[in-house]
Amino acid sequence: MGDPKVRRFLKLLSDRGFVQESLVTINGMEKKLFRFGPQGTLLRKNIIKEWWDAVVSHQVNTFCLESSPLMIKTNPQNTSSSTESSVRLVSLDSSSNPVDCALRASLSKECLEAYLSSLQMTSGQLPLSLASTGQCFNLKTEDKSSDNNSKLLNNGLCETHLLSQHYLPPVNVAQAVEFWTRKRLSWWKKFSTNPSKICSSTSSVTNGNKTSISRTIIGYSFPWGIEPLETIDNHGNSPLLDLESKSGPSPQVRHDKAVFHAHLLECQTSVESCMAAFLTDSYREKTVKATSSEKKQDIKKVLQLHPLLCPYHVALSVTGSKKKEVFILSQHVAKELREGNLSVLHLPRNSDSMESQYRRNDELGVPYTVVLSDQTLESGVIIIRSRDTSLKQQHHIKDLQSILLTNLHPTELVK
Amino acid sequence: MGDPKVRRFLKLLSDRGFVQESLVTINGMEKKLFRFGPQGTLLRKNIIKEWWDAVVSHQVNTFCLESSPLMIKTNPQNTSSSTESSVRLVSLDSSSNPVDCALRASLSKECLEAYLSSLQMTSGQLPLSLASTGQCFNLKTEDKSSDNNSKLLNNGLCETHLLSQHYLPPVNVAQAVEFWTRKRLSWWKKFSTNPSKICSSTSSVTNGNKTSISRTIIGYSFPWGIEPLETIDNHGNSPLLDLESKSGPSPQVRHDKAVFHAHLLECQTSVESCMAAFLTDSYREKTVKATSSEKKQDIKKVLQLHPLLCPYHVALSVTGSKKKEVFILSQHVAKELREGNLSVLHLPRNSDSMESQYRRNDELGVPYTVVLSDQTLESGVIIIRSRDTSLKQQHHIKDLQSILLTNLHPTELVK
Repeated sequence: MGDPKVRRFLKLLSDRGFVQESLVTINGMEKKLFRFGPQGTLLRKNIIKEWWDAVVSHQVNTFCLESSPLMIKTNPQNTSSSTESSVRLVSLDSSSNPVDCALRASLSKECLEAYLSSLQMTSGQLPLSLASTGQCFNLKTEDKSSDNNSKLLNNGLCETHLLSQHYLPPVNVAQAVEFWTRKRLSWWKKFSTNPSKICSSTSSVTNGNKTSISRTIIGYSFPWGIEPLETIDNHGNSPLLDLESKSGPSPQVRHDKAVFHAHLLECQTSVESCMAAFLTDSYREKTVKATSSEKKQDIKKVLQLHPLLCPYHVALSVTGSKKKEVFILSQHVAKELREGNLSVLHLPRNSDSMESQYRRNDELGVPYTVVLSDQTLESGVIIIRSRDTSLKQQHHIKDLQSILLTNLHPTELVK
Repeated sequence: MGDPKVRRFLKLLSDRGFVQESLVTINGMEKKLFRFGPQGTLLRKNIIKEWWDAVVSHQVNTFCLESSPLMIKTNPQNTSSSTESSVRLVSLDSSSNPVDCALRASLSKECLEAYLSSLQMTSGQLPLSLASTGQCFNLKTEDKSSDNNSKLLNNGLCETHLLSQHYLPPVNVAQAVEFWTRKRLSWWKKFSTNPSKICSSTSSVTNGNKTSISRTIIGYSFPWGIEPLETIDNHGNSPLLDLESKSGPSPQVRHDKAVFHAHLLECQTSVESCMAAFLTDSYREKTVKATSSEKKQDIKKVLQLHPLLCPYHVALSVTGSKKKEVFILSQHVAKELREGNLSVLHLPRNSDSMESQYRRNDELGVPYTVVLSDQTLESGVIIIRSRDTSLKQQHHIKDLQSILLTNLHPTELVK
């Protein structure tokens, strides 16, 4: 983390409205609080959409859930669950009584609780998948590693989890583990400029209930070492056996004339892990020869984010002597592009040079900058400048939208 | 609420996986906790998307933000803010020290705090808008009305707020109030089958700091009375004057050679308010003549949700003697429709009659049910049954996707 390149990268993320991290002390442990600026919030939104499309929308028998991250405990004795932080809320505003609450630490439990009612949707048939996204809180103190805070978007007090649970007949488990490991790996690699930095490993771990689960971890090779991004856990049938021992109705299902307890395969990641991997992965530096002897060496920074993830698809800039008229034209262009479902960065007129606007757009990860000028008013000619090649091309304004859609994503954005 | 129609409606919402409400007692007050099932979660997702498109994506100079709902207090003395619930977290798991926290009750404060840094994006120019969505907690006890709990999706401990703040030069305020009131009213009416039940009223209210603000309330006429859905507050320049008195840098801006404090217009609603209005609005009952003398009067229930909001656009059903083969065909149809960005309900084969499947789909608010049968295998003929008219039409399977896209939304889904 002493690496100056990493320091410049973190400064860019803070300066350019992606994320600001601050340290807080809770239960004697340092945790991080994240604030996401305009660019970070758009990136998060795109990440959740891509996860949702891959895991929910295009999958069969997949149902989603949502509930409150703060639960009120009705039986305060039961504080043994490892999936929540049991806390007592004492209001500082009034003299009211304390309330025993649970701040959830994972989405697993509420999905598992919804399994039986979801079975009704499929007439008791498997496979069945449940998915949930939501904020979870990490108030636990068991994590002792001291260098946690130097890593990007790690060790957060509040993180947004992305969880999918797959309930399977025993005979299909091996195949499903294979399917989901491959599917999740290819998802991570799809958005990466360095697919070889995405790796996976499988091991056997023992969880809180002393049962052994088979865990596959997908990781990313950060400059400071390999960090886990997603876990794919094969829990076997023990979660359903536990459920049966606690509650009344039997969660057994029939499949091909056999009666059994479903096996549970669980994939879990967080929006913060996705951001850390994709932002680090997309960061590039280029040293520019200093123009004058006084000026120190200059470093150009670029976030080569995937077109499906970048906060803005295109930025509009105006230049030339008739800035006022050209700006009015650019407002119409922005409106049209937005109606074509493109995310457009169109800032008010200012006195920044084109070169500094290109730099800013590179640092924001905007794939294309479109420059409108006096020439555009006269003949309709615009310049499209690419983030990744720095090349500028002249085009007619009538072709702008189709060129952008084709370049940004031949198949996915057009339809 | 004693109304049997309202009781049937609430039972449908619970049975059909929209929302389950449970009462909890906190600080001596009853609050509600919501659990959203598969259909409720999809509806919420669609509501947030439509709000985002209207308020963020298609607007100029609009930036979005996100941060943690749980903040750690660094100065516990300052407990006077009305936008958060100051609480002390005492962990029940260990012997660690209590931590003073704030659970946010609104998104206003964190947006206001981001105003100055966002001004850099627009080179200090107005108008500038900030938008945020996120979970907020309502632990306060001042709300005394006793019948709150009988209303739908009201008085929740945790709600997802949708907030937009518009910072304006004084000269543009009246115009902006007019613009946003009209814009938000037309948004609410767009998704309503009864636009006349959406109403608005304007009054002057005094807020915590004893300053007077002009408030427009958009409401819906529920069976149990008019309830507010969204507030549009014209705060004047007092929030920015407050900000100046608390922090160092002056939040004054220049506009047309004048220097002034921006005026703040704030629009706030919640996903829960949207759900309550749109679900109530879409509910229809139809009494069916009993077929036998023993059977009591039968009531058909339909949720006529707007195509942009409904959890599923289309449901697939199979019937006939070759169910197994037809089901395999239906899997391919489902895959194709999903690739066309349609949300498809495709459940495993079961023994329910077509009539009971139509009923279920009506109660889930699915606009179209497509029936595949032996005939489809032979000649490609399918039946499309409409939720709103109950009419069935025969079509060729090759036209299915284009018919659905055209019927669901001529302009918005096709592109």
